[in-house]
Amino acid sequence: MCYDAFNSMKAPKQNRRRFLALGAGLAGLTACKKTVPSEIGAGVRAYGERSPLEKAARDVKESITPGTGATRTPLQDLDGIITPSSLHFERHHAGVPSIDRAKHEILLHGMVEQPMVFTMDDLRRFPSVSRIYFIECSGNGGGELAGNPQPDPQKAAGLLSCSEWTGVPLSTLLKAARLKPEAKWVVAEGADACLMARSIPMEKALDDILVAYGQNGEAIRPEQGYPVRLVVPGWEGNINVKWLHRLHVVDQPAMTRDETAHYTDLMPDGKAQMFTFVMEAKSIITRPAGGQKLAYGPGPYEVTGVAWSGKGKIQRVEVSVDNGQTWTDAELQTPVLSKAITRFRLPWQWAGKAAALQSRCTDETGYTQPTIEALNAVRGYRSTYHCNAIKTWHVKEDGSVTHV
Amino acid sequence: MCYDAFNSMKAPKQNRRRFLALGAGLAGLTACKKTVPSEIGAGVRAYGERSPLEKAARDVKESITPGTGATRTPLQDLDGIITPSSLHFERHHAGVPSIDRAKHEILLHGMVEQPMVFTMDDLRRFPSVSRIYFIECSGNGGGELAGNPQPDPQKAAGLLSCSEWTGVPLSTLLKAARLKPEAKWVVAEGADACLMARSIPMEKALDDILVAYGQNGEAIRPEQGYPVRLVVPGWEGNINVKWLHRLHVVDQPAMTRDETAHYTDLMPDGKAQMFTFVMEAKSIITRPAGGQKLAYGPGPYEVTGVAWSGKGKIQRVEVSVDNGQTWTDAELQTPVLSKAITRFRLPWQWAGKAAALQSRCTDETGYTQPTIEALNAVRGYRSTYHCNAIKTWHVKEDGSVTHV
Repeated sequence: MCYDAFNSMKAPKQNRRRFLALGAGLAGLTACKKTVPSEIGAGVRAYGERSPLEKAARDVKESITPGTGATRTPLQDLDGIITPSSLHFERHHAGVPSIDRAKHEILLHGMVEQPMVFTMDDLRRFPSVSRIYFIECSGNGGGELAGNPQPDPQKAAGLLSCSEWTGVPLSTLLKAARLKPEAKWVVAEGADACLMARSIPMEKALDDILVAYGQNGEAIRPEQGYPVRLVVPGWEGNINVKWLHRLHVVDQPAMTRDETAHYTDLMPDGKAQMFTFVMEAKSIITRPAGGQKLAYGPGPYEVTGVAWSGKGKIQRVEVSVDNGQTWTDAELQTPVLSKAITRFRLPWQWAGKAAALQSRCTDETGYTQPTIEALNAVRGYRSTYHCNAIKTWHVKEDGSVTHV
Repeated sequence: MCYDAFNSMKAPKQNRRRFLALGAGLAGLTACKKTVPSEIGAGVRAYGERSPLEKAARDVKESITPGTGATRTPLQDLDGIITPSSLHFERHHAGVPSIDRAKHEILLHGMVEQPMVFTMDDLRRFPSVSRIYFIECSGNGGGELAGNPQPDPQKAAGLLSCSEWTGVPLSTLLKAARLKPEAKWVVAEGADACLMARSIPMEKALDDILVAYGQNGEAIRPEQGYPVRLVVPGWEGNINVKWLHRLHVVDQPAMTRDETAHYTDLMPDGKAQMFTFVMEAKSIITRPAGGQKLAYGPGPYEVTGVAWSGKGKIQRVEVSVDNGQTWTDAELQTPVLSKAITRFRLPWQWAGKAAALQSRCTDETGYTQPTIEALNAVRGYRSTYHCNAIKTWHVKEDGSVTHV
């Protein structure tokens, strides 16, 4: 039954190229044989799970306030642009409610001619859309901005994930309800115990927002808003209201707790900026990065990471290995999608000396990611929101990588 | 803490539009309130799971031969183009081996100047690529071809899934090993107990094949080849060798069991076609489809489904509701990617009468999906491979949908 040339193969020759010095001589043949099981493997199953040997995980910390938890996506362990739903970052203000899809409804009311209620099955009758979008908490990298740089990609930028979302354009529902002339804002409210709510300007509500029920092909996960959430492309995570159960059309923002006491940007003069919705262009190298080691010694490595912009497509990512003195264009994985993560890569020959790795991106508006010094000069050290500064990883001569 | 306009809202008015008759009067307000929990919800967790209320599943059947199982993706339950890894179809010839990533190696040898062995960490040093590709078993829809049409999308076409795969181009490894002039084929062998192997022409091996370790952002799932598999874009599933542990470069095909006794196309004259690799353009409507019901009675529904071609991009999908007499162009979800699933959609006003729903796609080569009659006229009824015929769903006057 097996391919019988197996027995006639020649042993690998000694490999002289350092790049591929991967166990020379007969080691390959031996290893190859020893991985073949002699017995039939496991059977089929209805819903699969990952290998028990795989340990990539969100970082779980107990919060001092019940229900106000957050976990971060392990960016250093991921490939491509899709975040596995099981590893999508979490941010809850009253825990994850247990909602029965069959009973859940969305109320659309206020300054509309025709108030409406939608069951989840009702939503399925409207024309749907699927789009790959990132969601980033505006607190992502808050430690960096406050002068407290984080030691690895997960801690530094893990409040970022990217999924294929499916749902109905919010504009479709608003048009069906027929907006009154004075309708200028939509207040979206979640069905968690705190009724988390945010105000959205009508221009954005009629643009690209999705009332989403699908995530990466299946139903949205409980932590991401099951059975339905808003996806507000490119805007701070908090406004992507989860467990959506109400859309209130009004003429002015509701000034909810999460747009006044929180999610405002405290400036050096003590005043706070409000309604700073857009997540600006940002990138981070995820490998090699803090907490990792260049285990092969001097030689070739792949530098890879992720870039994203709430204003559209990533146009360019540059990588520096000398702390920003010189820059080289990285390759962008295609297709480059608007308001989605873009994977970048650059082959790098490590000479075995100390190095400082940085990435900086430019989006299609021409905006370029700033240094942390430039950002602090404007924003001071009192805010923990909307940090999009360049992140630096130090490579030591022994190959270990740390944060600066 | 909650958005206090909640108490001042007006009750929804009576809704007169049939399309949106969703529980009129005060029902919405009542329902809205009743879904709000009064207690803090569940906490954060390291690796998420779907809602326990969600039941989409692969169909598990015991096989009479141990280890030779298959399960199908529940296409009717999915959105977008990404198949959740937990629901990717399975096809095993000796069960799912349990492989330790840390010990697994790939041997590359034969007609090369430099035989090589790669550990999984070694592969990580090469320039990587992420691409969204479908994989379809060539037996998908075999019942249809043999005159035994299947009752729902999962049974009719569920040996089809689509993932974002990450890995190293096979061409990179072959070039590193330096091919000898006589090298014309690569035999890929899996580390399952049957050492499942297939021969790949060198032209394809040097084109777009990936030696893939990532699936939808994380490590490839055990059923899909953990820790490493071939992804052979557009070609029949069986040649996308899983649990890859050997690449043997040779001058002629190895004539393995799975390219002689199986995965050949038996023609009406009793002769079999071999090495029919490409999966040709195909589509299927997944909603409304067999096993479902148009539960709202006459009125608007969304017709949606998936199309794909092993030869490149889908250029056009047409939908018929009258058994192929007239056709209307469906909308294609963008971006349309080469050798990936393309989602199509068409709003449909059901008049409450019997209807016959079909989709047919055309790919960028100009090839159009055939009728089952046209396919049977050429291929007969003895083969169960490479069926890409148009699938018909019958809608009855009571709204129930069945296969023909």
